[in-house]
Amino acid sequence: MDNTGYCGESFNSLQSGTSDEDLVEIAGATLDFSSTDDVPPLDRDYGSGVSYGAGEGPNGIPKLMDLLDEPVPGVGTYEDFNTIDWVREKSKDRDRHREIAIKSKESTWALLKRISDAFSGWLLMLLVGLMSGALAGGIDISAHWMTDLKEGVCLNGFWFNHEHCCWNSNETTFQERDKCPKWKSWAELIVGTNSGPFAYIMNYLMYVSWALLFSFLAVSLVRAFAPYACGSGIPEIKTILSGFIIRGYLGKWTLMIKTITLVLAVSSGLSLGKEGPLVHVACCCANILCHLFTKYRRNEAKRREVLSAAAAVGVSVAFGAPIGGVLFSLEEVSYYFPLKTLWRSFFAALVAAFTLRSINPFGNSRLVLFYVEFHSPWHLLELIPFILLGIFGGIWGAFFIRANIWWCRRRKTTRLGHYPVLEVLVVTAVTAVLAFPNSYTRMSTSELISELFNDCGLLDSSQLCNYSNVSVTKSSSDALPDRPAGPDVYTAMWQLSLALIFKMLITVVTFGMKLPSGLFIPSMAVGAIAGRLLGVGMEQLAYYHHDWVIFRGWCSPGADCITPGLYAMVGATACLGGVTRMTVSLVVIMFELTGGLEYIVPLMAATMTSKWVADALGREGIYEAHIRLNGYPFLESKEEFSHKTLAMDVMRPRRSDPPLSVITQDGMNVEEVESLIAETSYSGFPVVVSHESQRLVGFVQRRDLVISIDNARQRQEGVVSASRIFFTEYTPPQPPNSPPPLKLRGIMDLSPFTVTDHTAMDIVVDIFRKLGLRQCLVTHNGRLLGIITKKDILKHMAQMANRDPDSILFN
Amino acid sequence: MDNTGYCGESFNSLQSGTSDEDLVEIAGATLDFSSTDDVPPLDRDYGSGVSYGAGEGPNGIPKLMDLLDEPVPGVGTYEDFNTIDWVREKSKDRDRHREIAIKSKESTWALLKRISDAFSGWLLMLLVGLMSGALAGGIDISAHWMTDLKEGVCLNGFWFNHEHCCWNSNETTFQERDKCPKWKSWAELIVGTNSGPFAYIMNYLMYVSWALLFSFLAVSLVRAFAPYACGSGIPEIKTILSGFIIRGYLGKWTLMIKTITLVLAVSSGLSLGKEGPLVHVACCCANILCHLFTKYRRNEAKRREVLSAAAAVGVSVAFGAPIGGVLFSLEEVSYYFPLKTLWRSFFAALVAAFTLRSINPFGNSRLVLFYVEFHSPWHLLELIPFILLGIFGGIWGAFFIRANIWWCRRRKTTRLGHYPVLEVLVVTAVTAVLAFPNSYTRMSTSELISELFNDCGLLDSSQLCNYSNVSVTKSSSDALPDRPAGPDVYTAMWQLSLALIFKMLITVVTFGMKLPSGLFIPSMAVGAIAGRLLGVGMEQLAYYHHDWVIFRGWCSPGADCITPGLYAMVGATACLGGVTRMTVSLVVIMFELTGGLEYIVPLMAATMTSKWVADALGREGIYEAHIRLNGYPFLESKEEFSHKTLAMDVMRPRRSDPPLSVITQDGMNVEEVESLIAETSYSGFPVVVSHESQRLVGFVQRRDLVISIDNARQRQEGVVSASRIFFTEYTPPQPPNSPPPLKLRGIMDLSPFTVTDHTAMDIVVDIFRKLGLRQCLVTHNGRLLGIITKKDILKHMAQMANRDPDSILFN
Repeated sequence: MDNTGYCGESFNSLQSGTSDEDLVEIAGATLDFSSTDDVPPLDRDYGSGVSYGAGEGPNGIPKLMDLLDEPVPGVGTYEDFNTIDWVREKSKDRDRHREIAIKSKESTWALLKRISDAFSGWLLMLLVGLMSGALAGGIDISAHWMTDLKEGVCLNGFWFNHEHCCWNSNETTFQERDKCPKWKSWAELIVGTNSGPFAYIMNYLMYVSWALLFSFLAVSLVRAFAPYACGSGIPEIKTILSGFIIRGYLGKWTLMIKTITLVLAVSSGLSLGKEGPLVHVACCCANILCHLFTKYRRNEAKRREVLSAAAAVGVSVAFGAPIGGVLFSLEEVSYYFPLKTLWRSFFAALVAAFTLRSINPFGNSRLVLFYVEFHSPWHLLELIPFILLGIFGGIWGAFFIRANIWWCRRRKTTRLGHYPVLEVLVVTAVTAVLAFPNSYTRMSTSELISELFNDCGLLDSSQLCNYSNVSVTKSSSDALPDRPAGPDVYTAMWQLSLALIFKMLITVVTFGMKLPSGLFIPSMAVGAIAGRLLGVGMEQLAYYHHDWVIFRGWCSPGADCITPGLYAMVGATACLGGVTRMTVSLVVIMFELTGGLEYIVPLMAATMTSKWVADALGREGIYEAHIRLNGYPFLESKEEFSHKTLAMDVMRPRRSDPPLSVITQDGMNVEEVESLIAETSYSGFPVVVSHESQRLVGFVQRRDLVISIDNARQRQEGVVSASRIFFTEYTPPQPPNSPPPLKLRGIMDLSPFTVTDHTAMDIVVDIFRKLGLRQCLVTHNGRLLGIITKKDILKHMAQMANRDPDSILFN
Repeated sequence: MDNTGYCGESFNSLQSGTSDEDLVEIAGATLDFSSTDDVPPLDRDYGSGVSYGAGEGPNGIPKLMDLLDEPVPGVGTYEDFNTIDWVREKSKDRDRHREIAIKSKESTWALLKRISDAFSGWLLMLLVGLMSGALAGGIDISAHWMTDLKEGVCLNGFWFNHEHCCWNSNETTFQERDKCPKWKSWAELIVGTNSGPFAYIMNYLMYVSWALLFSFLAVSLVRAFAPYACGSGIPEIKTILSGFIIRGYLGKWTLMIKTITLVLAVSSGLSLGKEGPLVHVACCCANILCHLFTKYRRNEAKRREVLSAAAAVGVSVAFGAPIGGVLFSLEEVSYYFPLKTLWRSFFAALVAAFTLRSINPFGNSRLVLFYVEFHSPWHLLELIPFILLGIFGGIWGAFFIRANIWWCRRRKTTRLGHYPVLEVLVVTAVTAVLAFPNSYTRMSTSELISELFNDCGLLDSSQLCNYSNVSVTKSSSDALPDRPAGPDVYTAMWQLSLALIFKMLITVVTFGMKLPSGLFIPSMAVGAIAGRLLGVGMEQLAYYHHDWVIFRGWCSPGADCITPGLYAMVGATACLGGVTRMTVSLVVIMFELTGGLEYIVPLMAATMTSKWVADALGREGIYEAHIRLNGYPFLESKEEFSHKTLAMDVMRPRRSDPPLSVITQDGMNVEEVESLIAETSYSGFPVVVSHESQRLVGFVQRRDLVISIDNARQRQEGVVSASRIFFTEYTPPQPPNSPPPLKLRGIMDLSPFTVTDHTAMDIVVDIFRKLGLRQCLVTHNGRLLGIITKKDILKHMAQMANRDPDSILFN
């Protein structure tokens, strides 16, 4: 097993030994994700979770008198770094629901409880939306202020950011922000002037120092308090949603530290975004709020429904795009997404978006992060440059994923990984030093994207809009004719080209550092720059060569035919699509930014091209690549399993191995079972009628077996090593002097999933994916032959794809 | 079995006897849905579909020399009114894909074939989009023209509709359409004047006559050529998408007749819409186009993916809402909706929407059916009336479903159903006679909705916008302050109230007649009228009582605080939601109409209230109710199965029944098997090792068995009644004089699904839903005990809900 790591730190240590405990403690896990462990499940939880075969069916069979009728604490729960059994969890919830429904007919109080239970999901969604929206607003405001702090301070009060500071002054237009008297750059404050090389160096130094301070604080906090707070969190959330358990990953320490360090990391000017981490933050909120409701606290499957909705909330607050957020959760993150969750996600996403709007962090009462309004339609011929942008996006996406994974693997396998703080500081220093001289890299990345998306109006004073005003006859409402570019535009083009190269390279080493870091904004920035460059090029080409065949008819002089802002938008979409391989959700997010259905076609053309190109160069998106890098047991639902193998080729035991370890339903005593547990590390054992017949009766989880035997030894009188264990419905009379038997039918799953040995693996994979199984038993002509676990499948898939099967670490 | 019917006609006859053949012939089925029957499957189809256990696994076992190596035509296909096996179909497609992938490495030609195969899905989507968009455009234009034909004719050419006719004249504004000289009402043409009671009666008579003619034509065409063309088609499409086969339902005759009769039905002025049937039309297009591609022609599962996308296309062209269409397909119609389909649906929906726009049937180059632009925001207090509208919508929805189902059941059980033409003519006559005097019912329903959604501008000359112009100081951009209503508004209110009652009643008897009829538009009309009434009421209340506490602060005089058009929109959403129980898709469709995220909250509040209220009054939406009415085997995926029964309670044979009919793997001869087939009507038989051990080997479909035996008797020399049938891998040497054995391992499914008898039924239902099974075998301790089919589950569910289990008709 190679040295697999997590955000630059060895993750192997999480699997065993003391550091596991340490991390979980630090991350506050014992209070959050793990509380199902600490609280003994209620009667109904136990009784329903595993008792649906306990002989109390409506068939008139008398219920077994079982000494284990009292629920044993811990039975039916999961260990850390294990996979949940979706079928069992959902069945448990249905039992709980049934119980409430039956009780509700008895009294008004129970009826009220039923109603409150039915609405608790909505209430939870409301709370998730409110909390996430409020947190996102706080993060936006703080990041904005701290980003400006790198350049200067407001004399009216240090807590005002640049824009806010100048609102209070007399210069009201946003364009004149540099002339606002109350806002002092550091050079002005220290040496009294803002001009001259000395002042420039002063500002430069202050910029770099603040950046270093912020990033040092961020990385120290992450290292000290919540190692899970680093990265974007989306690969882990995908894994958790697919049924894996990582205790503490969505705990309150992670939430606190991630929120604080996210602000610090964004403010430090590193090439990272806050959009991915916001999804993590929203999921933390949801997980913490789940503890207020028994229904969600006690059921891993129900909780995952809430987390799916929280992922939608995260994107909704990141971009102000609730519908896009829901589709993002559906397309990219979620594993199990029933229609009820769709509807609730939508509700939560809207609540969050409106909470954010009422906080109004952008100061313009806009819901969306990048508000764009284009005035002219696009022409069919423009699809060619749009498709070119798609190709660029696809190539960039594939390159980025390869480079980033190569770098992250280096970080794990070489000495580089031992100095995460140093790494962060070096990258920050390089970023800050290179970024300051270029105004397009000095501004925050989201500001840059905003400016690139912008359609130049008449009054725009930015460099990018410095066009020669030839014969500006205000023809239609807002549309401006294409004009020749002024000198500033050419300067801007150079600066943007440099910024493009800089962003492309620095993002590769930034993503994956021990800091909260999102990918959306840097990817979009790369694409937006490339798109704007192409757009301005096309515009000038059309202006100077409007008599060319391709421009004739739609680009006559005086017509507003090319919108460079649209090109920037298309480019951003293409690059983001290439990196994440999102499709519908990406287009819908962008649609929500513009609100115009007309621009969907360009966006779609670019997204499709980008996805096809990127897929041709490498099948995985960045999140899948990171999941694989970390060895999470994630069964990808998008890719078809296309190999012609059978269940018998995948199941354990292999042909040369010793036979499967099974328990007989009435032939083993406590000692034998305990030695079986001690000798093997399987997570569960099939129960058979006898060793000879190998006819399957049920399946018992190792954890449940251990807990039950320990419990019986402690509490049940007379149970010793020689006590026989019975999984049968009726216990035969024991010989007079034998110790009392131990009846464990209650913890046995009487409905284990089975497939035949001739079942094609593609069908088995399908069953695992759709039903969310942990394991499946393999039979041949009615006889038990072997077992297939999720890990076996993942290993088999890795092997078939010529990858190292040992890269799958957890189960 | 009661007299179940379909659009008023007995459907029992479809199940057996000659009328089945007739219908299928008429509906052109032999050319469409059934062609998998006629064309012998390719080698790979057969070899892969059922051979994944045929002993050619990678285990070195030599491939069985089997006389059945040649594929038998028809093996692996389905009979009409049967359910497909999703697992088998999908496995078949994966095998086909694998085959192509392996071959593609051999030659360039095969590689090109692989690439074309990969892109064929996209090409198909493009074609579906283009064809559906074009058809929808044609339907829109024709319906518009024929609706106007009821009132008059254009002198410039009878093929111009009213609007078109007046474009060519000098009066250019839409408002003065009544004064356009080229457009002559029938009275003007016949008696030379348009005033006076005589002219009115003339126009009235012509209106009623045209309506009767159109509806008579429509119902005659449906009865004569395509009985499947009636209704909205959505219940049947839901059933087909869930895996049921109804041959001819999506055939080209159905398409042709539905398109023509839809135009006629809409033009006749009946209270029905074209939106639901457009979904059916789009699905027909998709099904027909599927025949161009082997991949989709031969695979029922793949074809259903395309049909899911087509449902999105249908809504996309109906409303001009591509995203809403995709969500509609996902939420309301589809059963199996993988992410790939999501992305392709979106593409097809966009193509269709843009095709429709380039046809420009509304003459305003708008993509959407009802374009709305509101100028003022809404106030939080307005949520109260919005929620009231939601309650109204929910109550109306529940009432409508009950009344409509009661009426449809009457139609099936009483003599009413025997006179479908008369019924249509009577309803048309009543509709036309009552509708003509009221201008709001005389206009087409979509025009009415359009007018109700409209926010009154200054220049609007419609009755509804006749406000007293007190102190119109054009304050902000477009917003007009609230004004007192003029006398025309009060007249309009009365007329609208009458129209509301009329629409509510007439729609109940209209939906379900033997005509293509959609529900969307009539439901929306009811809601829009109610909403507008409430909106105008609120507006006047706020105007006259702006000093009331609730209005203080936001409804000061001169403010534009209440938008009656928004109320109409909210009302329409609520009513449509109450009837169909759509949620997210409905809100998104409405969002796409306005394009403003702000109005989502009112829409959402109304939809949620409406759904909750309607669900409290009756669980089912109109489509589910019709599915149940017709006895289709549809396993609803939205509702949880909440009863605590076990597989052993549902499986056949019951305790008192004779044991399960099984085939032994090597112990039966042709005669015995044939008599087993003749004696039973089961759709398949389990194959066991021996009658004594009851250990399961596989499962064989009745249809495959019959075809194979018939085929062997005809073609294979020496196969007689005494020939032994072997399902084993190796055939033991036969005694010298015995006839040659028949080896049928090739048609046996070696991986039948099994559950234990103790499996809870909620889990079994889950498995059936998620994997799309036809049947599942039940074992106890490794021994075969019984079988559960989809029909058994549906019957069990009906029984549990205290309904007649025999209402489930098909399998």
